[in-house]
Amino acid sequence: MAGVISNSTPADWRPLDPENTIYVDLKKGRVVIELAPSFAPNTVANVKALVRDGYYEGIRINRVQDNRVVAWEFPDADVTNAARRIKHGKSTLPPEFERTIDQAMPFTPLPDGDVYAPEVGFCGDFPAARDTNTDRIWLIHEYGMVGVGRDNAVDSGGGTELYVIIGQAPRDLDRNVTLIGRVVQGIDLLSSLPRGTGAMGYYEKPGQYVKIKAIRVAADLPPARRTNLEVMRTDTPAFHDLIESRRYRREEWFHVPTGRIEIVNIPIPVRPAARVPAH
Amino acid sequence: MAGVISNSTPADWRPLDPENTIYVDLKKGRVVIELAPSFAPNTVANVKALVRDGYYEGIRINRVQDNRVVAWEFPDADVTNAARRIKHGKSTLPPEFERTIDQAMPFTPLPDGDVYAPEVGFCGDFPAARDTNTDRIWLIHEYGMVGVGRDNAVDSGGGTELYVIIGQAPRDLDRNVTLIGRVVQGIDLLSSLPRGTGAMGYYEKPGQYVKIKAIRVAADLPPARRTNLEVMRTDTPAFHDLIESRRYRREEWFHVPTGRIEIVNIPIPVRPAARVPAH
Repeated sequence: MAGVISNSTPADWRPLDPENTIYVDLKKGRVVIELAPSFAPNTVANVKALVRDGYYEGIRINRVQDNRVVAWEFPDADVTNAARRIKHGKSTLPPEFERTIDQAMPFTPLPDGDVYAPEVGFCGDFPAARDTNTDRIWLIHEYGMVGVGRDNAVDSGGGTELYVIIGQAPRDLDRNVTLIGRVVQGIDLLSSLPRGTGAMGYYEKPGQYVKIKAIRVAADLPPARRTNLEVMRTDTPAFHDLIESRRYRREEWFHVPTGRIEIVNIPIPVRPAARVPAH
Repeated sequence: MAGVISNSTPADWRPLDPENTIYVDLKKGRVVIELAPSFAPNTVANVKALVRDGYYEGIRINRVQDNRVVAWEFPDADVTNAARRIKHGKSTLPPEFERTIDQAMPFTPLPDGDVYAPEVGFCGDFPAARDTNTDRIWLIHEYGMVGVGRDNAVDSGGGTELYVIIGQAPRDLDRNVTLIGRVVQGIDLLSSLPRGTGAMGYYEKPGQYVKIKAIRVAADLPPARRTNLEVMRTDTPAFHDLIESRRYRREEWFHVPTGRIEIVNIPIPVRPAARVPAH
């Protein structure tokens, strides 16, 4: 894989759009989330509105479930106060679990099948599944993906609770939760947090909560304070080479190259941006 | 799943065998590993011999790679000294990547296929894959599985380096490394460790190493100091019900039950033992 990256050209990479990037700043560092407006336009817009309304001010990580998720939402006692700050956002939204396939968005399929979906691959540089019979496509739950928590009603999640997958891909959540993007840097700051000992990994004592210093849209920070990253495009020959390098591990260490690959085992490379976007 | 467990009978559970259980005691608590002698008889015997020879005394966790592994081995400078303690064990062993199918060992197959292997399921209460055409069966790499690190030569790993999977199942390691068991309690003590910043997650400074207080075979501790657990058997109607409860999530929260399940998403339940084994 290192060879594929070193052989790539600048055109194989795409800088993050500051307007669709969110920073979650913790004491130990920054978590960078790339948003996926192509898949969840209303929810992404709403999360950005909640950020800009100041809704998340004072929010803390209150749930760390091993091999599952890190999540943050206000405890019941604080929700009303936080909701008062909402001006442009909404507390809840209709779900965006899946969407109609857009032929204008390239889809890079994987050749080895999937247990859960008719077809999996990459679309818009995110891991996705699709069903060409029903003309539907959706983001899949895997390590680093970011979603909006909800209650039993499908329209009860709009972004007031956010979660990040930190374990084995819980694919049974696909099409059950609106996914809004993925962590492209800093996931280790979340995955190494102490696990909550309550049911579903909730911290049992407020003293365990992990402070979030700020959640901001990258575009709202002066350029000098942004974390400029670029993501490898998934619709290029270089990315096709990357897929093959993972299907057939050529390193001398490997005794049996599998010749197969599952979508959750293909990383989408991210690196410091060579070019900083002008806007 | 909670319903399946509460409806289970004592016969659906199997106490851990103290002779095939290893404790890795850290400052923060105990990691309990169930060994799998049916799959790796020589390597399991060797790891126990290394434990009893005192080989691991003073060993520290020196590698924590995000979404991948926690591992411990002596740094090069200390290997020679540690090897002097070996009396009954060996530094290296031929690999036990797979074995011939044993018809006497029940295999509980999963119905929804697998990307990597012709068939997957449970055998000896471990996750396994098999190929009935070649008559071979092997343990699979998933969250919590424990393996012996090796160099490029397949016979270079005998247990002097041990690792635990703490991320997305790296199934391309199947049949490339000898797996010796799985963590049945305390994985969160490993998965929440700070990530190493060196290549492959190695800690770059010895000050970051995580002390291991002791590694012992459970049988070598007096009964009062053991952690007595029982594992749900995977060859029973109760476990079949558990599989179905994961394939079709009936909880009200689920909008779309997948009707499918991947092996890595089926937990093998573990709980405090109702009956403590006599020996």
